[in-house]
Amino acid sequence: MIKVGIIGATGYAGGELVRLLKNHRDARIVWYGSKSYIDKKYYQVYQNMFRIVEDICRDDNLEELAEEADVIFTATPQGFLAGLLKEEILSKAKIVDLSADYRIKDVAVYEKWYGIEHKSPQFIPEAVYGLCELNRSQIMPATRLVANPGCYTTCSILTAYPLVKEGIIDADTLIIDAKSGTSGAGRGAKVQNLFCEVNENMKAYGVASHRHTPEIEEQLGYAAGRQLTLSFTPHLVPMNRGILVTEYASLHRKPDGSLPSYEEIRAVYERYYGKEHFVRLLEKNVCPETKWVEGSNYVDINFVIDERTGRIVMMGALDNLVKGAAGQAVQNMNLLFGLEESEGLDLVPCFP
Amino acid sequence: MIKVGIIGATGYAGGELVRLLKNHRDARIVWYGSKSYIDKKYYQVYQNMFRIVEDICRDDNLEELAEEADVIFTATPQGFLAGLLKEEILSKAKIVDLSADYRIKDVAVYEKWYGIEHKSPQFIPEAVYGLCELNRSQIMPATRLVANPGCYTTCSILTAYPLVKEGIIDADTLIIDAKSGTSGAGRGAKVQNLFCEVNENMKAYGVASHRHTPEIEEQLGYAAGRQLTLSFTPHLVPMNRGILVTEYASLHRKPDGSLPSYEEIRAVYERYYGKEHFVRLLEKNVCPETKWVEGSNYVDINFVIDERTGRIVMMGALDNLVKGAAGQAVQNMNLLFGLEESEGLDLVPCFP
Amino acid sequence: MIKVGIIGATGYAGGELVRLLKNHRDARIVWYGSKSYIDKKYYQVYQNMFRIVEDICRDDNLEELAEEADVIFTATPQGFLAGLLKEEILSKAKIVDLSADYRIKDVAVYEKWYGIEHKSPQFIPEAVYGLCELNRSQIMPATRLVANPGCYTTCSILTAYPLVKEGIIDADTLIIDAKSGTSGAGRGAKVQNLFCEVNENMKAYGVASHRHTPEIEEQLGYAAGRQLTLSFTPHLVPMNRGILVTEYASLHRKPDGSLPSYEEIRAVYERYYGKEHFVRLLEKNVCPETKWVEGSNYVDINFVIDERTGRIVMMGALDNLVKGAAGQAVQNMNLLFGLEESEGLDLVPCFP
Amino acid sequence: MIKVGIIGATGYAGGELVRLLKNHRDARIVWYGSKSYIDKKYYQVYQNMFRIVEDICRDDNLEELAEEADVIFTATPQGFLAGLLKEEILSKAKIVDLSADYRIKDVAVYEKWYGIEHKSPQFIPEAVYGLCELNRSQIMPATRLVANPGCYTTCSILTAYPLVKEGIIDADTLIIDAKSGTSGAGRGAKVQNLFCEVNENMKAYGVASHRHTPEIEEQLGYAAGRQLTLSFTPHLVPMNRGILVTEYASLHRKPDGSLPSYEEIRAVYERYYGKEHFVRLLEKNVCPETKWVEGSNYVDINFVIDERTGRIVMMGALDNLVKGAAGQAVQNMNLLFGLEESEGLDLVPCFP
Repeated sequence: MIKVGIIGATGYAGGELVRLLKNHRDARIVWYGSKSYIDKKYYQVYQNMFRIVEDICRDDNLEELAEEADVIFTATPQGFLAGLLKEEILSKAKIVDLSADYRIKDVAVYEKWYGIEHKSPQFIPEAVYGLCELNRSQIMPATRLVANPGCYTTCSILTAYPLVKEGIIDADTLIIDAKSGTSGAGRGAKVQNLFCEVNENMKAYGVASHRHTPEIEEQLGYAAGRQLTLSFTPHLVPMNRGILVTEYASLHRKPDGSLPSYEEIRAVYERYYGKEHFVRLLEKNVCPETKWVEGSNYVDINFVIDERTGRIVMMGALDNLVKGAAGQAVQNMNLLFGLEESEGLDLVPCFP
Repeated sequence: MIKVGIIGATGYAGGELVRLLKNHRDARIVWYGSKSYIDKKYYQVYQNMFRIVEDICRDDNLEELAEEADVIFTATPQGFLAGLLKEEILSKAKIVDLSADYRIKDVAVYEKWYGIEHKSPQFIPEAVYGLCELNRSQIMPATRLVANPGCYTTCSILTAYPLVKEGIIDADTLIIDAKSGTSGAGRGAKVQNLFCEVNENMKAYGVASHRHTPEIEEQLGYAAGRQLTLSFTPHLVPMNRGILVTEYASLHRKPDGSLPSYEEIRAVYERYYGKEHFVRLLEKNVCPETKWVEGSNYVDINFVIDERTGRIVMMGALDNLVKGAAGQAVQNMNLLFGLEESEGLDLVPCFP
Repeated sequence: MIKVGIIGATGYAGGELVRLLKNHRDARIVWYGSKSYIDKKYYQVYQNMFRIVEDICRDDNLEELAEEADVIFTATPQGFLAGLLKEEILSKAKIVDLSADYRIKDVAVYEKWYGIEHKSPQFIPEAVYGLCELNRSQIMPATRLVANPGCYTTCSILTAYPLVKEGIIDADTLIIDAKSGTSGAGRGAKVQNLFCEVNENMKAYGVASHRHTPEIEEQLGYAAGRQLTLSFTPHLVPMNRGILVTEYASLHRKPDGSLPSYEEIRAVYERYYGKEHFVRLLEKNVCPETKWVEGSNYVDINFVIDERTGRIVMMGALDNLVKGAAGQAVQNMNLLFGLEESEGLDLVPCFP
Repeated sequence: MIKVGIIGATGYAGGELVRLLKNHRDARIVWYGSKSYIDKKYYQVYQNMFRIVEDICRDDNLEELAEEADVIFTATPQGFLAGLLKEEILSKAKIVDLSADYRIKDVAVYEKWYGIEHKSPQFIPEAVYGLCELNRSQIMPATRLVANPGCYTTCSILTAYPLVKEGIIDADTLIIDAKSGTSGAGRGAKVQNLFCEVNENMKAYGVASHRHTPEIEEQLGYAAGRQLTLSFTPHLVPMNRGILVTEYASLHRKPDGSLPSYEEIRAVYERYYGKEHFVRLLEKNVCPETKWVEGSNYVDINFVIDERTGRIVMMGALDNLVKGAAGQAVQNMNLLFGLEESEGLDLVPCFP
């Protein structure tokens, strides 16, 4: 039985970790860390957990926690883990970090986009970017530190990855228009996230400046074999859960000037994802909908070729709290401990 | 492995049955019945089931199905099962009927409220009203026909039952104000259930005439030991899932004129529900919220004594598609086959 | 041209006052008071007002404002106005108070339910309770202080008033189950009002203790000619605007034991509201829906007689920000200045 | 007083026409045409109109209506007007067609994208494309037929127009990602538009094939002075009203290789829209939100330059039923009859 500690257990991603781990046969939560609710019953923060979790919220003492846990999930603000991480912690417990602290290899890029100093860059090299479908082989029992990918980034990267990697699209033309439910904004009490401000409303935000941009660029850059610069625009949608990305790119034409066919592109996607448990390539002409993956660890992906413009429209959908956060974190934990990758994650999406 | 057939598998309750049964260790669905989608892949009707259910929708041939299945769930319109049920079907397969056909013992009451003739009243006597918490002892391997309670009725009855049974409240003063998410209205294509008609809107409907009224009256009447007449008003709420009931009744005063205390009433509830797996009596002053039970088989119940008026306000919340329909149906199936009652139903509510 | 000052112009009710007054031919806003946004452009707080309102938010200096304005709307927290009001202010400008400070005649009742000391009870006697349909004759140019009714109370009182006044119902049996959109909770940054907490959720709150209870009791008590005690339960609904009340009461039987007929009760309602501009008695069997009054100053009312229980179910719907707050405040202003009562308020409800 | 007839008065756009025209000083509706509700009171279809509209729904007899009305709004399915229009009708009444029948000059393009034969192409040449801000001079008393633009198209075109016209962007790189509330899908009873299917969900649809594409291409093509081919992807959002477009294009670099500055691009927008009543150029860094224009005839527009990619992100928001349909139709009517263009349209957006 893996002993799990969660720092930030009372945020939305932390709450989802609790929900998933309660269904996990090989894991047991031993520490519900929460700066805001210390000594309060966890179920008093999340009444859905009444009669399911009896534990009390504890502080975020990483050192003490490392003594008690085999793995620590940090669902915390940027800079938190980087400010506390030490060799002795990592030597005692594995860490799956849901923040961005160790996702970006170039510390200067991190510091520029996040506007804070990175306090422990020495751990960046060993951190594995935990997008399991791409980096599975590096997430293994010997791994100590996993940088769990962001919600937008997981969806954005997986949707385009095979076509970038195989050079099917001109990666310099890649434009990602992303839409997210409001749980992605967290549980902080802000006027802009009040029901009456979000409901019946839609907007873009962080235009040309959202922090998930360099993360996507880095990972797709590895696929392209060179540095990429792309457009990423997030939008806030009046729903609780779900991310939908719509990605546009010009297709490389074949020597005869023709575009690759549906079947050819389908075959590329199949090659990469055909055997992936959590990636569902939808049938032709079925567009992903966030509702169809809600509550599950699936990413649904599909594409349409636009013969008129020579572009392809790629679409991906996932649940930002599951595959976009807690589900992927558990998937990483499973790999770290040599378990079946899907253990505890065979969640049937809930509709309606 | 129990072989399960579902008639009406493509309605919302049918879809929820599929979701729940895919997580059930001892059951396997062998028949996805759907009048509207015969020969279509089930996942083409519900894309959340893509890669999870490969079966094709079949017709609603109850006789043929009885040959193949151990238990049949009928999630069908009123009158459907009553029009087809025969001894030879029941002799081959158990039936859990999610419609109202066998819920009401007095066929005249059924025919008056539903406005249709009951075609097979001969089976009414043997049907067990499948509110497991109340009738558990009658739902057993020898039982052939279970009338699965309605969504409003499950919530309404469980919330008031102990206080009616113990004579704590004056049952003649009972008023039930119920609020339901829109999935309770089914998947039929009706203008009144379009997004733009329901969203940002709220209304009462079926005032003084809703069909769940006599069902509640019958069951609470058994508790009271006499015939009851009560007020029941359903309302439509702009959310997918969830029923909340707010019930009002005058408390019987004690000989000294005082009202029963919080502790006394709490003790009554505890006596009835303290050991129930799916009924959660909330802590003092915590009002039930539909979101805290979403996706789960729980009913959350609490009450407030109003000293000023001498009334009690009882509140209950459940997920209309789970404890209010499919979850309770599976709970009944478990009892019918001698399984652990909670098998396949230990679903952690999903928040947010 | 009436010069209007608003204290609390950046709350939801304040914002609605601005929307309505921009369409008013005889009023001009001269002061946008906002404690939180002093010196900020008003439209930067509410971008809907961009290019419509160029003014800057000012502080809440009531004395200075009284010099500049003919009428002051105070859309402020309980206790604010009571703490500042002086004879010299009232001698210079009329006040329409959207808070509860002067609604309740018995200061002890106010202090008990609101839990604060009333700092200027000397003005309570002269304050007129501004439910225009009931107290029109007292809201006139000589009136200086109007206590604008609460949102729940306006809907609750108007829905039952004629039947209480005429003794058609047994007022001691009156139970009010009220449902409100979330704008009623205000624009404060609280976790419980975040989108993800309210959306897909429903709950009761303030059970047997909500502050609108004594206000309803006082006004309906005037109708009954005696003190009343009633049950009032508010609920939070996932929508921006709208209040729906469902009210239950036993009908007084006639000497022959029969219940009053639909026509008889209809006639009573017609007598009171038949000529009211903002009260719409719906046609038989049409239940009020909040969406049908959205954005307008209408209250829609109807009722159903339940022969079985001898009760009547009365229903009312209004927009909590219009007839439940800002619209009624403008209606009061119109009366105070001898204008047409509906001036600026002939708003066609917006659907969908 | 202009006599107005509406064909399709009981659809959502038709209903909005009624709402707007009830507030119009110079227009009076004389014909509420509705194929589905003939002889029914209009307010029985839209209860918000109770006590406001007493008229009865009439059939869609265009010839008879032309005798009674000065102007006819056709809020009807594609092909309806084209199938009925004759010279004698146009000689009697002006027509503002809210369908696509006369929007596209090239009948072959129309027939290809809409998949139907155009029955009266002879009227296409005289039809004026009623995007008032661009074609104001052609919408005058002598004009008989106005093709009212689509909802997506109005927003998409206005957002990009100045930059296409002035050659600031490379129009061949233009990608329009559009998001719409559900009222755009109409009031037809379809499963896919049920509350439970749309709520908590988001999807793209009509990818690379939506019918508004050629309409946008034609109009922006006029601006570019050549034929354009662009990408347009609509999405369905769980809200009633509102369209948001996010448009991406590469900026043309200046001879020195630099990008145009914020001020330069702002100046272009100001030149085109600085004096437009219904176009609001937002302040720097304020992204349009659909809620800020709800219920009004405004289009809010802004842009962000992405120095990294050399692209510009343009954003526009409008209410699909007002500026995207009925409001623009009334704006066209005003021009057709020589009235103030904003008559009846000075609607303050409603928030929240």
